[in-house]
Amino acid sequence: MDGDAVTDIMITGGAGFLGARLARDLLAGGSLAVAGSAARPVGQLTLADQAPVPSDLAADPRVTSLCGELGELLRPGGAGSAALAGASVIFHLAAAVSAECEADFDLGLRANLGATEALLAACRAAGSKPVVVFASSLAVFGDSAEHPLPAVVDDQTMPNPQTSYGVQKVIGEQLLADYTRKGFLRGRAVRLMTVCVRPGRPNGAASGFLSGIIREPLAGQRAVCPVDAHTEVALSSPTRAVAGLRCAAGASGAAWGGRSAVNLPALTVTVGDMVAALQRAAGPDVAGLIDWVPDPAVTRIVTGWPARFDAERAAGLGLLPDPDFGSIVRGYLAETRN
Amino acid sequence: MDGDAVTDIMITGGAGFLGARLARDLLAGGSLAVAGSAARPVGQLTLADQAPVPSDLAADPRVTSLCGELGELLRPGGAGSAALAGASVIFHLAAAVSAECEADFDLGLRANLGATEALLAACRAAGSKPVVVFASSLAVFGDSAEHPLPAVVDDQTMPNPQTSYGVQKVIGEQLLADYTRKGFLRGRAVRLMTVCVRPGRPNGAASGFLSGIIREPLAGQRAVCPVDAHTEVALSSPTRAVAGLRCAAGASGAAWGGRSAVNLPALTVTVGDMVAALQRAAGPDVAGLIDWVPDPAVTRIVTGWPARFDAERAAGLGLLPDPDFGSIVRGYLAETRN
Repeated sequence: MDGDAVTDIMITGGAGFLGARLARDLLAGGSLAVAGSAARPVGQLTLADQAPVPSDLAADPRVTSLCGELGELLRPGGAGSAALAGASVIFHLAAAVSAECEADFDLGLRANLGATEALLAACRAAGSKPVVVFASSLAVFGDSAEHPLPAVVDDQTMPNPQTSYGVQKVIGEQLLADYTRKGFLRGRAVRLMTVCVRPGRPNGAASGFLSGIIREPLAGQRAVCPVDAHTEVALSSPTRAVAGLRCAAGASGAAWGGRSAVNLPALTVTVGDMVAALQRAAGPDVAGLIDWVPDPAVTRIVTGWPARFDAERAAGLGLLPDPDFGSIVRGYLAETRN
Repeated sequence: MDGDAVTDIMITGGAGFLGARLARDLLAGGSLAVAGSAARPVGQLTLADQAPVPSDLAADPRVTSLCGELGELLRPGGAGSAALAGASVIFHLAAAVSAECEADFDLGLRANLGATEALLAACRAAGSKPVVVFASSLAVFGDSAEHPLPAVVDDQTMPNPQTSYGVQKVIGEQLLADYTRKGFLRGRAVRLMTVCVRPGRPNGAASGFLSGIIREPLAGQRAVCPVDAHTEVALSSPTRAVAGLRCAAGASGAAWGGRSAVNLPALTVTVGDMVAALQRAAGPDVAGLIDWVPDPAVTRIVTGWPARFDAERAAGLGLLPDPDFGSIVRGYLAETRN
């Protein structure tokens, strides 16, 4: 692809919140650097998703949308195979989320494990050695009696997933690293923090309430907070999550620093801090719309994830955490009021 | 299965060296403890393998042998499904080995990843919650710039596989732990050291020469040593490897100590030490049958594995390393002269 005048890109999960946001960012910026090369204009942008893509994206002449199960789309001769073969960068964001996978084990195996296996096999079959950015997650980490979670997670911390979602993300990281080692593609795995504030409707993620307790009250609606106010969480604004994905595609191999996954930076806050920032931004009546109703299942998942990170490799790539939760709330308000 | 008067067992890879040895050990001992229960007599012993089982095993009335690809045997309605559903313990030893998987990427995906996925799915479908002992490997560990291998590997060391075989073993461990967490089975993953001395013919393992440089000279044949004499390796006699597998099946959940894999104990020796022990046991003419012909590909794989272990969880289970390599050579001689 090095001789191409443009960069063709595929985003799996391209109709989802983060995928669509990344797509808009790429289309608006108009160019993307790939693995240390100079930035080139965005050519074709293929968005693969089970759901239809937002209309603003569908209307862009550079966008092709493919609607269906990823495993189906990527079958030899399938609609996605040709797009994938032509792409020099693939952002693999499609996934079933944490609480969905806890509730439906088969869904996680199919949508996370099976689809990732299919994507990697399709990249290998294409022979085009694309850069593949894989959205992994802080859910690869966890606490167990034999492997206690350290107080601060750093780039040397051992993954120890305690959910099916986390297990499937670890497996994706390992497969990506092996396909990279074999020269079939150039893999870049990034572990995303909980992205907050997500607009739109709640999803099936156990962490979904972390957006809900901000988004719903700001829209004048009540929201349930299922964990207690002292619970610490590791957050990233959507802007910084997208910056992490772009950086993973663009960094040179030397700057990226290896085949193992990179922890993206995290802002550590308590849920109480989040609500206090909401109250400062929007007043006590808005913050009063939160109902504190403990949910042991959600609490177990969310408190099992690490909240404090020392993201040294990310910092070396110029990726820094959001400065505070107030700035995240202000960013959300600015966007939703446009 | 708790009410059964006997213990039915399945061994995948049951015609292989370690599988057949485990089978003989179970049949000779005649009983097996399962996850902390009292030992019960061995009932049906099903050996599943692509190769035919040795004739001594086939002749035992307790043995049923199933010959074919594991994925095929375990299909719903397949010959292996009923045996698997009736087994209260499954030893999953079937695997393509390290150098084979480096040479044939598809073989590793199919024989290690795909077959393990199929086995776990079949256990879940059976609903019988068997104890599943998974033979993982020291190949889950490795050295990379971003994750240097520590001087001594212990139970807290992060897997960092640098071969497809090692990646597939990590994935098997993770899937097994998740199936265990979900209550579909009771998984026990053990990381085997290089088993030495293997009798019979060389296999496709990168570590195969570690048996070959002892076995072939003792049989009056020349053998090639592809690494230099200072190379340190982590070994286990066949007897102790089988003891580790049996212990994994028999230990109570509390004694086992978690869902993560247990490193089996290792004897650390240099290849030079091994040859010196061979010379002490069999004389300089025998040791002189070794040709030292460096092979960079084998050296890269073997020196990438750790050689020094502090196997604390294993020690807590009563599993200790072989005392020295001389005892391993003497054990091999005693067996092969019978």
